[in-house]
Amino acid sequence: MSFFQLEATSGEARAGRIYTSHGVIETPIFMPVGTRASVKTLWQEDLERMNAQIILGNTYHLFLRPGHELVEKMGGLHKFMSWDRPILTDSGGYQVFSLSDINKLTEEGVTFQSHIDGMRHLITPEKSMQIQRALGSDIVMAFDECPKLPATKETLRTSMELTHRWAKRCKTVELKEHQHLFGIIQGGLHYDLRMESMEGLKELNFDGYALGGLSVGEKNEEMVEFCKKFVPAMPKEKPRYLMGVGKPLDVLNGIKAGLDMFDCVLPTRNARNGQFLTTHGPLNIKKARFLEDQLPPDPECSCQVCTRYSRTYIRHLFNVGEYLAGQLISYHNIHFYLQMVKGAREAIFRGEFDDYYKTFYNNYTTNRWE
Amino acid sequence: MSFFQLEATSGEARAGRIYTSHGVIETPIFMPVGTRASVKTLWQEDLERMNAQIILGNTYHLFLRPGHELVEKMGGLHKFMSWDRPILTDSGGYQVFSLSDINKLTEEGVTFQSHIDGMRHLITPEKSMQIQRALGSDIVMAFDECPKLPATKETLRTSMELTHRWAKRCKTVELKEHQHLFGIIQGGLHYDLRMESMEGLKELNFDGYALGGLSVGEKNEEMVEFCKKFVPAMPKEKPRYLMGVGKPLDVLNGIKAGLDMFDCVLPTRNARNGQFLTTHGPLNIKKARFLEDQLPPDPECSCQVCTRYSRTYIRHLFNVGEYLAGQLISYHNIHFYLQMVKGAREAIFRGEFDDYYKTFYNNYTTNRWE
Repeated sequence: MSFFQLEATSGEARAGRIYTSHGVIETPIFMPVGTRASVKTLWQEDLERMNAQIILGNTYHLFLRPGHELVEKMGGLHKFMSWDRPILTDSGGYQVFSLSDINKLTEEGVTFQSHIDGMRHLITPEKSMQIQRALGSDIVMAFDECPKLPATKETLRTSMELTHRWAKRCKTVELKEHQHLFGIIQGGLHYDLRMESMEGLKELNFDGYALGGLSVGEKNEEMVEFCKKFVPAMPKEKPRYLMGVGKPLDVLNGIKAGLDMFDCVLPTRNARNGQFLTTHGPLNIKKARFLEDQLPPDPECSCQVCTRYSRTYIRHLFNVGEYLAGQLISYHNIHFYLQMVKGAREAIFRGEFDDYYKTFYNNYTTNRWE
Repeated sequence: MSFFQLEATSGEARAGRIYTSHGVIETPIFMPVGTRASVKTLWQEDLERMNAQIILGNTYHLFLRPGHELVEKMGGLHKFMSWDRPILTDSGGYQVFSLSDINKLTEEGVTFQSHIDGMRHLITPEKSMQIQRALGSDIVMAFDECPKLPATKETLRTSMELTHRWAKRCKTVELKEHQHLFGIIQGGLHYDLRMESMEGLKELNFDGYALGGLSVGEKNEEMVEFCKKFVPAMPKEKPRYLMGVGKPLDVLNGIKAGLDMFDCVLPTRNARNGQFLTTHGPLNIKKARFLEDQLPPDPECSCQVCTRYSRTYIRHLFNVGEYLAGQLISYHNIHFYLQMVKGAREAIFRGEFDDYYKTFYNNYTTNRWE
């Protein structure tokens, strides 16, 4: 059986299945982020209950703590965290540049100081593969350089070419039998650079292709336009992953452009700041208007939280700093994303993705609660 | 049907049932503390899953935030927090003295400044009843003064007598039909003062009697000895509640002395410091020895946590500051208390409480993990 099976399309939007040894992933899919082997504030049981099909772990964080050797010794990341569904690990590239204190880039790799204890480490493409092999994730990402936007085309070309040479080196490292390696396309918002990046990676024949270096400083419209133009040119027979993106409408636009996989920390991070998502747009539980509001976070949602807890209660929890506030909103927000992509998938099978998009978009941007 | 039914005894230990309009409580029972309308880090579903039969809410905290008027307007504490099993609220007395910045005690009540915003408030016995009536808890505690130990007998007598006059005033306030009022016996470690306090309260005919002012600075042995001597003299036909106590062995000693109800923040508070309870004593997950320990927190426990998560994983979560560490340990620790009192109850029915006590005590104090 092939790794990816395209099942249906509706416009450019695609529905498919990714087969891993830890189970099937139905696309389009949103992947909750479990940076340090935990999707913040949620039990693994919570993720199972809301039908999360795959979660993400961060190589950079797990390399630093608890260390990939420990995770491997404990039987791999699945066993370590007691999660037997698929896991994707990023390459550490993005975090090495964004989180570490000092980093030095050479052809060999990146030397950086840990944001935790200041220890110096060198991560090379080979090292990233070794770490991810030890973690035992189902989907492994190639080690890439990810420059912040805006950047000159010259910078982006240099970076993209380095990423390509690194991708080649990643390919030389043997992974575990159950692991699949994705290449990361770079090149900023330049169609020609991205095409060149993609063509180069295609020759290396990765199991999937990701768009890296988006949502890193450019305007949202620029990202949407870029994806609309670029994604249809990506290989049809492989999963397409938009890394680190994004808000609900970003994911929806990504699906519309033909992308299959998404991840973002927003649903959990914003939850801890009180933001909850509703069919009619995001709201913040801190607002005084929720003081006596006995509605659930989203009256149109059927999750565990919305069938039991009220805005007035959650607002109180948030105001007094109770942990449960973040737990409940995180649960609801991730459930919201999963329902959104599930609805998109169903609409694609019906050949009605455009209608789904318009309805979702109109509801989400017409905030009847404001 | 009477409020309390004594079902069995084994030595001084008792098994009984407390009937409330929100359900039956099987004693001896441990009550998880939900200070601000949340048992920290747990969903209400978690408490239901581990068969928590009654939880505690703190009048002082709920009075300050979100305010009892709001809770009443939202339909009472049960509806507000979506918990339809019994709730006990304390009187606010203990917190007024221990948490507020400045407090002034008069015959009328206590004037204090909120620990949150410095606002001045006056709580009187009548006010405490009004707040608890608004909250709608099933078991309401009389407003008492609770001096710290050590204190002179003179101080304790003055305080006990004030508590008695306040108890009388509490009795004059009409509660909701479903509510039951408990009196609080004070008098430090002085048997004569406590007896005088109890006899006075008995004349007022409360629905249950609590021992306040213990575990507030005295030696543990003193508390144990005091309970052993005093509790058998308490009314047999009413529930007996040891307030704010304590560690597992304290609860077990309380049961042995003939007490029925217990509450304590330790299982959740210590959880957030990494302490987890096992059949063979408490341990701290921070310790290096758990680095590669794939055992569950307590190998002899069958809770959701111990059937799935390992010490090595929870230690990692704790070390990196993931919320899930506190969530998992809190769940396990409360489950541990509930299993302990359930085991005690079963042993009492078999007439074998002493054996249960000895086995538990020996296991718990012979730490085979150390």
